[in-house]
Amino acid sequence: MATPHEPKQDRSRATRQRLLEATIDCLAETGWAAATVSVVAERAGVSRGAAQHHFPTREDLITGALEYMFDTRMDQSTAEAAAISGVAEGEGRTRAVVSGLVESYTSPLFKAALQVWTHAAADPALRERIVPLEARFGRIAHRRAVEALGVDDSNPVNHHLVQATLDLARGLGLADVLTDDSARRKLIVDQWASTLHAALDNPS
Amino acid sequence: MATPHEPKQDRSRATRQRLLEATIDCLAETGWAAATVSVVAERAGVSRGAAQHHFPTREDLITGALEYMFDTRMDQSTAEAAAISGVAEGEGRTRAVVSGLVESYTSPLFKAALQVWTHAAADPALRERIVPLEARFGRIAHRRAVEALGVDDSNPVNHHLVQATLDLARGLGLADVLTDDSARRKLIVDQWASTLHAALDNPS
Repeated sequence: MATPHEPKQDRSRATRQRLLEATIDCLAETGWAAATVSVVAERAGVSRGAAQHHFPTREDLITGALEYMFDTRMDQSTAEAAAISGVAEGEGRTRAVVSGLVESYTSPLFKAALQVWTHAAADPALRERIVPLEARFGRIAHRRAVEALGVDDSNPVNHHLVQATLDLARGLGLADVLTDDSARRKLIVDQWASTLHAALDNPS
Repeated sequence: MATPHEPKQDRSRATRQRLLEATIDCLAETGWAAATVSVVAERAGVSRGAAQHHFPTREDLITGALEYMFDTRMDQSTAEAAAISGVAEGEGRTRAVVSGLVESYTSPLFKAALQVWTHAAADPALRERIVPLEARFGRIAHRRAVEALGVDDSNPVNHHLVQATLDLARGLGLADVLTDDSARRKLIVDQWASTLHAALDNPS
């Protein structure tokens, strides 16, 4: 939060971040159509003029939020990888990796991203901005999962099972959008972790 | 298609069906916001007056399309189950089941449903209409997969692996929304079919 003693540049950065976080919350809770500069500004407690200084158009705001979502997902993925490296090797480690991945797909961040992806399905300009970010995120998420599982990704069995785990996580994320699916999801994660651990070639 | 000799009731039913199919195509290709009664009427080659006779409001049109999507997904699932029953038992049967399920989640029907689900995330009234339909569809899809795989669903390993397969299919469907993911998807389906077949208890 900004304070009177904060340098101007820091205050500006903090305002920008508040606007981006409010955009993500708006997208996740009220959907694509409602996430406009004025609604987001009000939610962030920022004047409309200040919001428009940072993001002159709605397109600028959505693009900014996309990049911020990408950076935040990366930071979360780094934090998660660090937490998992402390889990003892064996099936418990595999379960921690699967569970962490799946939970990251049920966050408000995923729900906000889903609004943008779904809108982008019919908006080629937006799609063009998203696709490279998603491809990069997918590669990094894959590499981190491989490292956390301690498997050799050049083995196609391992490579495709890690990919399948990321796809499962995405599907479980989508299943959580309309109802709280957490109880069912926990059982699926447990079974998947056990099946995955047995099927991977030489996991740690 | 209606012909001059067709009874009035059949023509009316055909018009309704054309409107519902156009709604699904509009949702899948141009997204939620563009699927209005007038756009759909034009796409279906139906006068705006006739369209409004069938669907006075946009809400009526979307609700009608939801039920039609549900019925169509059920019909496709029945046809698929019949096709799979002809595949020899063993891993090939498991692969046919997984592949059929996954492909059903990459159809225009899934892409249209995704637009409705995503919009419903921030629209409680729409969500209330969708959730029971989805729950019913989920139960039927699960039961058909269990029958096609020839497994005992009272075994929790089988039950959760079939659920996971449906969740994986949903995730692969979402991965296909912004780019053509078919080449990658084929490899994942092949690997998962093989892992699933080995992990199921006593598949046919």
